Amino acid sequence: MDSAGSQYPGGFVAIEGERISALGPAAEAPPAQGWELIDCSGCIVMPGLINCHTHLPMVYFRGLADDLPLHEWLTGHIFPAEGAHLSPQFCHEATLLAAAECILGGTTCVNDMYLFADSVASALEIAGLRGLVGEGVIGFPTPSAPTWQDGLKLSQELLRKWQGHPLITPTFCAHAPYTCGVELLQSLYTAAQQHGAPFHIHLHETHAEPGMVQWREGDETPTAALKRIGILGAELIGAHGVWLSERDISLLAHGGCSIAHCPCSNLKLASGIAPVPQLLAAGVPVGLGTDGAASNNNLSMFEELHTAALLPKGAHRDPAGLSATAMPARTAVELATSRAARALKRSDIGQLAPGKLADLIVLDASAAHLAPRYHHEGAVYSHLAYSAQAGDVRDSIVNGRVLMRGRRLLSLDPAALRAQAQAWVDRSYPPAG
Amino acid sequence: MDSAGSQYPGGFVAIEGERISALGPAAEAPPAQGWELIDCSGCIVMPGLINCHTHLPMVYFRGLADDLPLHEWLTGHIFPAEGAHLSPQFCHEATLLAAAECILGGTTCVNDMYLFADSVASALEIAGLRGLVGEGVIGFPTPSAPTWQDGLKLSQELLRKWQGHPLITPTFCAHAPYTCGVELLQSLYTAAQQHGAPFHIHLHETHAEPGMVQWREGDETPTAALKRIGILGAELIGAHGVWLSERDISLLAHGGCSIAHCPCSNLKLASGIAPVPQLLAAGVPVGLGTDGAASNNNLSMFEELHTAALLPKGAHRDPAGLSATAMPARTAVELATSRAARALKRSDIGQLAPGKLADLIVLDASAAHLAPRYHHEGAVYSHLAYSAQAGDVRDSIVNGRVLMRGRRLLSLDPAALRAQAQAWVDRSYPPAG
Repeated sequence: MDSAGSQYPGGFVAIEGERISALGPAAEAPPAQGWELIDCSGCIVMPGLINCHTHLPMVYFRGLADDLPLHEWLTGHIFPAEGAHLSPQFCHEATLLAAAECILGGTTCVNDMYLFADSVASALEIAGLRGLVGEGVIGFPTPSAPTWQDGLKLSQELLRKWQGHPLITPTFCAHAPYTCGVELLQSLYTAAQQHGAPFHIHLHETHAEPGMVQWREGDETPTAALKRIGILGAELIGAHGVWLSERDISLLAHGGCSIAHCPCSNLKLASGIAPVPQLLAAGVPVGLGTDGAASNNNLSMFEELHTAALLPKGAHRDPAGLSATAMPARTAVELATSRAARALKRSDIGQLAPGKLADLIVLDASAAHLAPRYHHEGAVYSHLAYSAQAGDVRDSIVNGRVLMRGRRLLSLDPAALRAQAQAWVDRSYPPAG
Repeated sequence: MDSAGSQYPGGFVAIEGERISALGPAAEAPPAQGWELIDCSGCIVMPGLINCHTHLPMVYFRGLADDLPLHEWLTGHIFPAEGAHLSPQFCHEATLLAAAECILGGTTCVNDMYLFADSVASALEIAGLRGLVGEGVIGFPTPSAPTWQDGLKLSQELLRKWQGHPLITPTFCAHAPYTCGVELLQSLYTAAQQHGAPFHIHLHETHAEPGMVQWREGDETPTAALKRIGILGAELIGAHGVWLSERDISLLAHGGCSIAHCPCSNLKLASGIAPVPQLLAAGVPVGLGTDGAASNNNLSMFEELHTAALLPKGAHRDPAGLSATAMPARTAVELATSRAARALKRSDIGQLAPGKLADLIVLDASAAHLAPRYHHEGAVYSHLAYSAQAGDVRDSIVNGRVLMRGRRLLSLDPAALRAQAQAWVDRSYPPAG
């Protein structure tokens, strides 16, 4: 799975330090001496999955409230819970649990937006997971920042502290056009540009969003409004993009912007279905994201991948059934690997190739649901896009470091993290009576 | 999870012979002496999942061809493969592999329609899985029956051989209104009625189907046409029902018919999305099915459950987002358990209650993706509908017999079955060159 989509039945991958140094058919492998060997017989070795939009600490709110319209869910349950409970410690501990779930499911890189982002980053560092991490800045007081200017300050401190870190890439995050004013958006975007950092923002998630953007002119879409104020450039990663118009898609393509597609969350919160085939046709880089665990409710990128592969085919009640071709399995797999890397503005991950960072996973292909395997070139993509499960991931390597071996986590203690999470729920939301 | 939806945090289930004899809070458990104990601490004990529509032997065609419109997929790939390869041995061996996948994923009962159904039944008997099994009868020659009359004869032999079997329930299966004539349909339906057996048929899977029903009158829908020829009664289990009209739904409700909803397959083959909330509102029993593995591509009922829970919320681009309430987690779980049983005309499975058959699964709830757990009544349904994975199933019991313990299959050897499947592919579709 390099840029040419090469497959080596019986191949090798050599890792030196943080990077892949060589790969190819087994016959070309270097002599075994002096190397630590991981036998991957009967397995699929592939790039690690890249989660392009998430809020990791929200795993602590998994199952707090479900089956509600977005507004009621957010303002009646999530915002109050965040107001009552968020702290650096909460975000650190919750991120450790989320990181365990990510590694167990084959994710090797996340793009996170949340509060107390420094605590998220330090948890990812412990876990060994690669992360783009940003402080979510919003136009009203939050537990981490009384004003958006304080949020900007936190973002700049995050940048200073983590810039150059081998795993953590600081980003600038504005929550959304409907919760942020022009000055906030422009200040954050300018900072991102100055530092060559990604700018991560929720974009057109719901049908109601345009009417909620108080600073828009006329009936501008959120995308058009962002364009007018000068922040629709190559730094921008827009999450969701469910209701983008044709013109919006063209604006994003010309701006060099990318979209993080979160199909499960968009379904669960009744937001809709993003026009992914249209985005791809226009040349907009698209990657997959799980969103937070309160609106998914898991962080399995394989499940996200299945949903992303299936939805564009059948969701539009296409009478002729021609949309069966709308999202080939290989393209869907790329949305979680090579295309995801491009959506996060990264050329150093998402593929297995010499010189790329060694972020890869080993899938045990012996599961009953992966049998049999046909010999045509698309067979492996078919299994990955439609049938593989988070639990099939056997080993995980990030930045050349083994994070999981034989499904045993080496950097984290999941039992302790689960107990910590449960103790927090028992304390904060005790059983009635 | 009895009919009242009772939950016992720290409870017991007692099984005597084939049936559940008692259950309740731990304090009411009988003394341990004389019982074989299975410790389920930290687990969720729940009814086994019921797959209401599948073609188990098609696991051997998993990944043969994907991403094609239904007609091209079926006539260009699946029908030729079936014509070239189907035999009693093929169907028996493939069903054993499929049964392994089912048990590993928490399925305890399947409703199967395929050719050489006697071989399917004998494989399920070996696996220990409960099955409604029928010979697919169709209006043209098949590998198992040169004429539909031969197919009817096979159905009747199946009935004679398996009637009264503790695990296998013979059914009568007509492929679909567009592939079966009136005489075929009426003959099979009459036989089903005579023997009190279920009648299983594909129904209105695609938009094009009405025009393909050569014997319809005027612009009748397939459902209305079936009603006219007298076979829309309580025996009928219709698979898919994607394009049902309001009037169709009303006809099904009045007939006492049920629908097997296969959301993943309907998406993959670009068929569309079935109107499940409308069916439920009309009182039509609905259960979930995976369809065959060539159009899914796995048999995970947990994945089907997630998709069924998510789709009705977001797929219709509901501007107000109110459809977030369209499929509560508990209803979705019931579509795979109690409602599925009702859809299969069974009152003896699908719930945990004294007197019901002992078909149940034990879920290891210690996975990172199931943490934390809130204490409100809906929390367990939320985890099951949105986050649990096939791999979380630890133990499986069908008809009082333990089929899996600690994820080890006791009735089947999955490694041997996988090797057998791969050997078949290597022989039948060898690598090019």
